[in-house]
Amino acid sequence: MRVLGIDPGVAVMGYGVVERAGSKLRLVAFGVIRTPADETQARRLMTLRTRLTEIMSEHAADVVALERLFFTSNVKTAMAVGQASGVALATAAESGLEVTDYTPNEVKQSVVGYGGATKSQVQAMIAALLGLDEPPRPADAADACALAICHLNRSGLRAAIGRATG
Amino acid sequence: MRVLGIDPGVAVMGYGVVERAGSKLRLVAFGVIRTPADETQARRLMTLRTRLTEIMSEHAADVVALERLFFTSNVKTAMAVGQASGVALATAAESGLEVTDYTPNEVKQSVVGYGGATKSQVQAMIAALLGLDEPPRPADAADACALAICHLNRSGLRAAIGRATG
Repeated sequence: MRVLGIDPGVAVMGYGVVERAGSKLRLVAFGVIRTPADETQARRLMTLRTRLTEIMSEHAADVVALERLFFTSNVKTAMAVGQASGVALATAAESGLEVTDYTPNEVKQSVVGYGGATKSQVQAMIAALLGLDEPPRPADAADACALAICHLNRSGLRAAIGRATG
Repeated sequence: MRVLGIDPGVAVMGYGVVERAGSKLRLVAFGVIRTPADETQARRLMTLRTRLTEIMSEHAADVVALERLFFTSNVKTAMAVGQASGVALATAAESGLEVTDYTPNEVKQSVVGYGGATKSQVQAMIAALLGLDEPPRPADAADACALAICHLNRSGLRAAIGRATG
């Protein structure tokens, strides 16, 4: 299974493609989509859509793992994240991909084993799990990889439980 | 000028196409896009995108007028409205349409002349301005028509000021 993790945002959208290879995880691709601040919100969202479509097609992901949104007091940020997430969801459905979402705490719990883990603990664990010398940069790409790892871990767990009880 | 007003929502998205014909306003089309509650959020957003693309193409709108988002305490509704608005914005940009947005108060101020107008006052004025016996139904479609009327009124005003000072 190959999972595309997406950390949604309009200015910067992080992505990371991770697959399970036997008992190991392998990082297939990662990066960020940046949209110019001097363009309209509509054009920036269109750019996200175009690039996401390309990434989904190029890396043949099976599933998208998206960060589940929690709105904070910053209304403007919340609105932009909601809009970016809407575009990511619609694009995933059009590309025929299944979509799951995880809260930041679920991701930390799954990747580090502790929901209250710090950002640097999460990053160090991502590097270790993917066999890298250092975590993917920038941080938005690492967060996206963590979402993908979270989904692979949970799917692996579900499959093991299925085998044990089947 | 032909304006497509959009009242964003995932379960129900209202739309109304209004054009200026001389000194009068003419309702070209209106309705709602409904998405099934038993489908995933991603598939519902995809459906919105598909239908919006058809509506933009079928009615050859020049501009999209969208409701500007204000998040309330209802996080779940706010998230859905943000996602629907993101899909509408990206779709408008892809269809080559200009996008403007207005707050609910700006719409009331423009349509009724009073930002504190009630919903029934707005609906009655929409019917009067469009030469209809009763306002478009359901309410989401009427709200979308109000957004289109707001944009036409403001554009007319800007043009008149331009002529007077030009």
